[in-house]
Amino acid sequence: MSWINRFIDSVTDKGKELLQAEDPDRVKGQYSLQEDCSALLTYRGDATALAMAQQILGRYDNSSAEEKLSFFQYLATEMSPDFRYVAELAQKLEQDADSKDYKQLLAALNGGRHMLFELLNIPGSGTQALVKMRTELLDLVPKHPELASVDIDLKTTLEAWFNRGFLEFREIDWHTSADILEKLISYEAVHEIQDWADLKRRLSGDRSCFAFFHPALPDDPLIFVQVGFTEEISDRIDPFLNQEQPVSDPARANTAIFYSISNCQTGLRGISFGNFLIKQVVQHIQKERPQITRFSTLSPIPGLNRAVQKGYLAEDELQQIATPWLTSLNKRYADMPLTELLSERFERLDESHDDTVSFLNELGLHYLTQLKRGEEPYDPVARFHLSNGASIYRINPFGNRKPHGMKSAAGLMVNYLYDLERVEMNHESFKQNGTIDIHPNLTKSKRRLRVLS
Amino acid sequence: MSWINRFIDSVTDKGKELLQAEDPDRVKGQYSLQEDCSALLTYRGDATALAMAQQILGRYDNSSAEEKLSFFQYLATEMSPDFRYVAELAQKLEQDADSKDYKQLLAALNGGRHMLFELLNIPGSGTQALVKMRTELLDLVPKHPELASVDIDLKTTLEAWFNRGFLEFREIDWHTSADILEKLISYEAVHEIQDWADLKRRLSGDRSCFAFFHPALPDDPLIFVQVGFTEEISDRIDPFLNQEQPVSDPARANTAIFYSISNCQTGLRGISFGNFLIKQVVQHIQKERPQITRFSTLSPIPGLNRAVQKGYLAEDELQQIATPWLTSLNKRYADMPLTELLSERFERLDESHDDTVSFLNELGLHYLTQLKRGEEPYDPVARFHLSNGASIYRINPFGNRKPHGMKSAAGLMVNYLYDLERVEMNHESFKQNGTIDIHPNLTKSKRRLRVLS
Amino acid sequence: MSWINRFIDSVTDKGKELLQAEDPDRVKGQYSLQEDCSALLTYRGDATALAMAQQILGRYDNSSAEEKLSFFQYLATEMSPDFRYVAELAQKLEQDADSKDYKQLLAALNGGRHMLFELLNIPGSGTQALVKMRTELLDLVPKHPELASVDIDLKTTLEAWFNRGFLEFREIDWHTSADILEKLISYEAVHEIQDWADLKRRLSGDRSCFAFFHPALPDDPLIFVQVGFTEEISDRIDPFLNQEQPVSDPARANTAIFYSISNCQTGLRGISFGNFLIKQVVQHIQKERPQITRFSTLSPIPGLNRAVQKGYLAEDELQQIATPWLTSLNKRYADMPLTELLSERFERLDESHDDTVSFLNELGLHYLTQLKRGEEPYDPVARFHLSNGASIYRINPFGNRKPHGMKSAAGLMVNYLYDLERVEMNHESFKQNGTIDIHPNLTKSKRRLRVLS
Amino acid sequence: MSWINRFIDSVTDKGKELLQAEDPDRVKGQYSLQEDCSALLTYRGDATALAMAQQILGRYDNSSAEEKLSFFQYLATEMSPDFRYVAELAQKLEQDADSKDYKQLLAALNGGRHMLFELLNIPGSGTQALVKMRTELLDLVPKHPELASVDIDLKTTLEAWFNRGFLEFREIDWHTSADILEKLISYEAVHEIQDWADLKRRLSGDRSCFAFFHPALPDDPLIFVQVGFTEEISDRIDPFLNQEQPVSDPARANTAIFYSISNCQTGLRGISFGNFLIKQVVQHIQKERPQITRFSTLSPIPGLNRAVQKGYLAEDELQQIATPWLTSLNKRYADMPLTELLSERFERLDESHDDTVSFLNELGLHYLTQLKRGEEPYDPVARFHLSNGASIYRINPFGNRKPHGMKSAAGLMVNYLYDLERVEMNHESFKQNGTIDIHPNLTKSKRRLRVLS
Repeated sequence: MSWINRFIDSVTDKGKELLQAEDPDRVKGQYSLQEDCSALLTYRGDATALAMAQQILGRYDNSSAEEKLSFFQYLATEMSPDFRYVAELAQKLEQDADSKDYKQLLAALNGGRHMLFELLNIPGSGTQALVKMRTELLDLVPKHPELASVDIDLKTTLEAWFNRGFLEFREIDWHTSADILEKLISYEAVHEIQDWADLKRRLSGDRSCFAFFHPALPDDPLIFVQVGFTEEISDRIDPFLNQEQPVSDPARANTAIFYSISNCQTGLRGISFGNFLIKQVVQHIQKERPQITRFSTLSPIPGLNRAVQKGYLAEDELQQIATPWLTSLNKRYADMPLTELLSERFERLDESHDDTVSFLNELGLHYLTQLKRGEEPYDPVARFHLSNGASIYRINPFGNRKPHGMKSAAGLMVNYLYDLERVEMNHESFKQNGTIDIHPNLTKSKRRLRVLS
Repeated sequence: MSWINRFIDSVTDKGKELLQAEDPDRVKGQYSLQEDCSALLTYRGDATALAMAQQILGRYDNSSAEEKLSFFQYLATEMSPDFRYVAELAQKLEQDADSKDYKQLLAALNGGRHMLFELLNIPGSGTQALVKMRTELLDLVPKHPELASVDIDLKTTLEAWFNRGFLEFREIDWHTSADILEKLISYEAVHEIQDWADLKRRLSGDRSCFAFFHPALPDDPLIFVQVGFTEEISDRIDPFLNQEQPVSDPARANTAIFYSISNCQTGLRGISFGNFLIKQVVQHIQKERPQITRFSTLSPIPGLNRAVQKGYLAEDELQQIATPWLTSLNKRYADMPLTELLSERFERLDESHDDTVSFLNELGLHYLTQLKRGEEPYDPVARFHLSNGASIYRINPFGNRKPHGMKSAAGLMVNYLYDLERVEMNHESFKQNGTIDIHPNLTKSKRRLRVLS
Repeated sequence: MSWINRFIDSVTDKGKELLQAEDPDRVKGQYSLQEDCSALLTYRGDATALAMAQQILGRYDNSSAEEKLSFFQYLATEMSPDFRYVAELAQKLEQDADSKDYKQLLAALNGGRHMLFELLNIPGSGTQALVKMRTELLDLVPKHPELASVDIDLKTTLEAWFNRGFLEFREIDWHTSADILEKLISYEAVHEIQDWADLKRRLSGDRSCFAFFHPALPDDPLIFVQVGFTEEISDRIDPFLNQEQPVSDPARANTAIFYSISNCQTGLRGISFGNFLIKQVVQHIQKERPQITRFSTLSPIPGLNRAVQKGYLAEDELQQIATPWLTSLNKRYADMPLTELLSERFERLDESHDDTVSFLNELGLHYLTQLKRGEEPYDPVARFHLSNGASIYRINPFGNRKPHGMKSAAGLMVNYLYDLERVEMNHESFKQNGTIDIHPNLTKSKRRLRVLS
Repeated sequence: MSWINRFIDSVTDKGKELLQAEDPDRVKGQYSLQEDCSALLTYRGDATALAMAQQILGRYDNSSAEEKLSFFQYLATEMSPDFRYVAELAQKLEQDADSKDYKQLLAALNGGRHMLFELLNIPGSGTQALVKMRTELLDLVPKHPELASVDIDLKTTLEAWFNRGFLEFREIDWHTSADILEKLISYEAVHEIQDWADLKRRLSGDRSCFAFFHPALPDDPLIFVQVGFTEEISDRIDPFLNQEQPVSDPARANTAIFYSISNCQTGLRGISFGNFLIKQVVQHIQKERPQITRFSTLSPIPGLNRAVQKGYLAEDELQQIATPWLTSLNKRYADMPLTELLSERFERLDESHDDTVSFLNELGLHYLTQLKRGEEPYDPVARFHLSNGASIYRINPFGNRKPHGMKSAAGLMVNYLYDLERVEMNHESFKQNGTIDIHPNLTKSKRRLRVLS
């Protein structure tokens, strides 16, 4: 336990005594959670404010789903800034920019709901409680759009706290503490970890793992990436997931494959660390294992099948890509509508059939580089890596033959290459112009920069 | 160098290359500092933004005083939020609270000047540069009140960064690194440290020192307090400042005297750590040296003489306090106006004269407890300790016989007692009602709670 | 990897090159392991010596059981000190104590076999290899008593290395690294740990674990003790071993029960750390959990049944203890010889039968305090704790109802109390006079100090 | 304070109480120091043994020079091993190697004086006390050769404790603790450090410092080396010692110059760390500052003038070297005996005189490579570096123009080059054959390996 938490705990304890003496009804919970929040904003002493904040967090935690919703709705309405007053001050400031009015304007915006979150953030475990609270809030927003403003303020509070200046970067291995490893097992989102033996294999010899931590969530990773050291840019996920895979000699490896990246904290959604993590891991490996010179992901293409089924890909382009393959197929598929055909076939494609492989290659590249959501690629994993500045290096038909992989993406996987010489340039081009860097390897000629249009 | 700074440096270097390729004129400094700032807000790529931020900080640092003023004025005017738009959005939100409008409102306020500070805060040494920038800005504000709004935004940025969650608490002793000790010598604001030998004495056996640090200013203390371990609540500062003072056996001490507290970073003015520090030191000493049971300051009364000279103390009350002493004085002072007399005498008072001592005791207590600035005590040191929850324990006439002490406060010093049993209660009463806790020792009867009125 | 191991590795690598150039046959292994040892003693350069030492350790490791025996026999004979020369020098020194002769005498004794062990100890993993080598040597000594002298020298080398000045004391909990926890599971010698879930329970809330480590065996514990925090001095082992046992509130505990102590390194037999560990744990807990005021083991009595069966206990005394119990038993046991009866009954005793309980109490105390091996108690666990200065606090019939516990000690367990006020005094009395401290609780009157006779 | 020292202190305190109760006269010091030592060897309890050991160390420390001498003489005679018994056992073992006899033989040798040192080594500050004791003993040995055997045993005890497995390697810079830096100032033996400002310059930018520490002497260096980073292999010491020397850009440096090496602990004489230190520093710098590719000392030649004056250099060879220079000198020196002439001239040589420079070059190389003490070079600094495996790279006439440098070595300095490719090979050749590696740079042709003969 850090000195600051111990310190805050001791002040909180004093605050509880004072609160008990001054306002025993409040301590007994005679007032509503909402009333407690509104009271907290009036407290001028540190100790009672801390005690009250802790009481509020405890009451929230013990609330029913209904009570929580009503609590958030209270924050959305009663605790909303007084926009009439804000408008008044802004008009005054427009006429004559006086710093006292400016202060008041900021206070009018930040003094209520946002201040409440700041006050709740102080007790030792306040940050953890807010991260959990936001997880629950985010669940409610889609059905209760009026809560989106509450989330804006809560996110602002968490964002300031989780700034990257305090991120801790750690290599995770078998020397790491059991409680962190246990969390890894439960957080792994991409390729499930079966048990301790499975985890141990993923941390042995030719594998490693890296994570970001933050002092506000001690021993609870924010995000982690699993890495395998290989002699080539892998096109299959199997060897990374197979516990029985023999450990190869890491000294002979020249390539690092990022085969799984998991965000751990839903409550920090939109507060991004992932782009940092991979680049930092690349720099770290370059220093610690200088023989490793290539860095690539082996990534899923999670949106492919959905895009095909929902008809998001232009019918004519799809047709053009598919024709050679269709031609080579059994005639009985001739009359089936393309989308239906694809859906039907995706789970039982034939790896030995060259035209199938060619088709899948074409299809994957087409999907990744042509289908957009807003200004950016439709596929969320592509969006992430291309925005980081990675290049599309290769499409891997039958990269993931597991049922889930076949179903969601016809078994296709993709390598995104992190070339530190190009990565920042690519990132800038992507951000400014939507340009995607496609490796010459893939275009079979020179490097192609395809602009998303 | 931390991993994050190394990482940011590497991205910044890439950004410089990209910037050089894209906009060589900008890198050459063909545009004004102001134009650079305005350009930075338009960059969408991380690397170029970092490079630009670093360029701006460098250019600011090399600017003349005049250029800096004009830079701040630019921030105050051109970079001010568009209040007309803010007012418009606020009116809209008053009608119908839509989260998109709320987002825009916040962006309208924070997207310009405040965002600029956030962007400048990122490069490795950005925080240090902003702390220095604020030191210079604070110097300008009194003569240029229009810059106060700039300071509001700059302070907000620094406040988020220097939140107490990341404060590091360290005991400073002769095992501490030379670079930190060297800074202590230069920062000590209350009782100057002469040289390394003087410092060594202040860290030996019956003395110690505690400080707060923050990762954003590595090895540069934010605030520190010097402590002596004694067998009584000291009434003289001399023994603490005298290098030749023999080291007494710390095992026999039962009291900790805080005899000097120095804030180190002007650029963090208003972002308070001091109230934490002393209470934390008390807790720390209680744990590490359980035989120490009393905690008191030996503090100056810096505003006393000025208050007397400027006639801030009510003439009739002052007269009443002074009469017994004046009566006992040589007649030739009889006709002198009181204020003049006091000023004239303050540097050569007679310690052996009982009436003088009584008068000084009365005067000190009267000044500390009756003279207010706003809602709080006029004396800045009293304000600090009483707000923390300390009690006034004793007035010490001739506590500081050095010329500066005699001149500023007629040699008076005061002990503020930190009694952990009372400190939070006192703090709350002070904050809520302005109550000051005066130790029974001083009132010669029971504990008196005097309300500032 | 520590700097020193990295450094030694780099020198060893150079040494291999030099050795390869100078004596390729040796590197190829054309000479016997014994010849390599003898060569090593002649090397004057650091690098080749290191390379040779590593080669020897590798060859030993790859040797068959037969080869190892013959290697040890070589050390016992050919590598034995030249006692004739030793005698000669000692006679010379007896006449005239010259320091050059003294040096030579020491060299004559230490320059061969002992020096070989010292040289093998240097490479990075040398110490680990020697610990393993001694494990194997100790296995051979009973059948090959001529190897005992080899063990004396090997133990001397390890003893100097594993001196207590470098012991690391660590609390083991769920934050401890997985590789250490994995070792705990495999090393637990007293009460087997089933799996990770079982281990986690033993490290939760009302339990803890403490261990000694040494830099020469990084992350490999030397010895560890498992502790439970309770509200009384436990008389049953069950609750400590049951994974489903609910976690009790450690804040309410006032007693620490040491319920399992495991030595981990057979190769360090006779180099004792255990006596340190428990006392250090007591001191540590006293500081960190001041509410814990009693410290006791819950220990097995491993030798009891064997002593009964082998008739080590005086027949008449045994008879006297057993009579009341026998009288109360079914008649059909009347004619059975006592020893046979006890053996036969030990696995199916009746807990509800008062006379049985009384008998077991008497038997346990009698065995622990009356049966000796040399100057000390016959029971190895008693020997350990009583030598440390613990008192016998209570005998616990049916403390361990598991088959192994019933079979080896009729279910009896014992509490050895560590009372820091008495422990050193007891230790001294035990060491000087063989006195055992029996708690008044047990004698039902005043404290009894029974001298082993 | 480490846990082990705290633990030992607590046991020692108990031991004092027990000792006080059992033998109050002993605690009062009624017995002689010698009698205390002899008593200590009979104690069987840990606590009283520790208390007695501490009492002995305290009494020794307070003894007069005379008493200390008599204490050492007691150790040399009364505490000497019983060699008659040793001889007896050795003869027995020669007949029949029984491990019990072997154990007894070792006990006969180690059970007395050596055991005493082991027991004195245990209390917290025991090691420090023994290091100091040996410093004093080494002072006495030259006049009292009978004490040499005592030193053999004391050194053995310290050697086991200060084994290299526990050495700590640290870079010393301005971040290092003040107490260590203060010790550096006092320990610097080669080129005196004037004050804190001088030290700070030696730790700035283009300089650094590295040291070995050992846990038994916390914060007290064993040995340290000062390094300057330059753009050439320096031939002058001045720039390294001049506080006003501007700091050059360390990024441009390609060479590390070791310009001062100081052993700090006289009491550890003969327990060598120096050879490790330089090679480790070279490896460390290679990793941390890869642009540094050359490593050389700039060393004094402390024995040169003494060797010349005492006539240790063969007269004819010296004559041959000196002739060209003498010829070019003023005639009035013609008849002076060479040795006298050299001594007379050494403090006022003319740097601009080419023949002088040539002569000094020849003289330096001749002295370093031809004059021996036993099997190794006569010059102690040469012995150290050449034994480590360094090469003689260059002789630097007028390298040190300070009075001391001119007087002891005619201003000559020498560069010993540490070429990691050759250093182990050189070390081995030197150790086996006495071969010295002379850099081709010096022989103006190919590398010369001159064998000391």
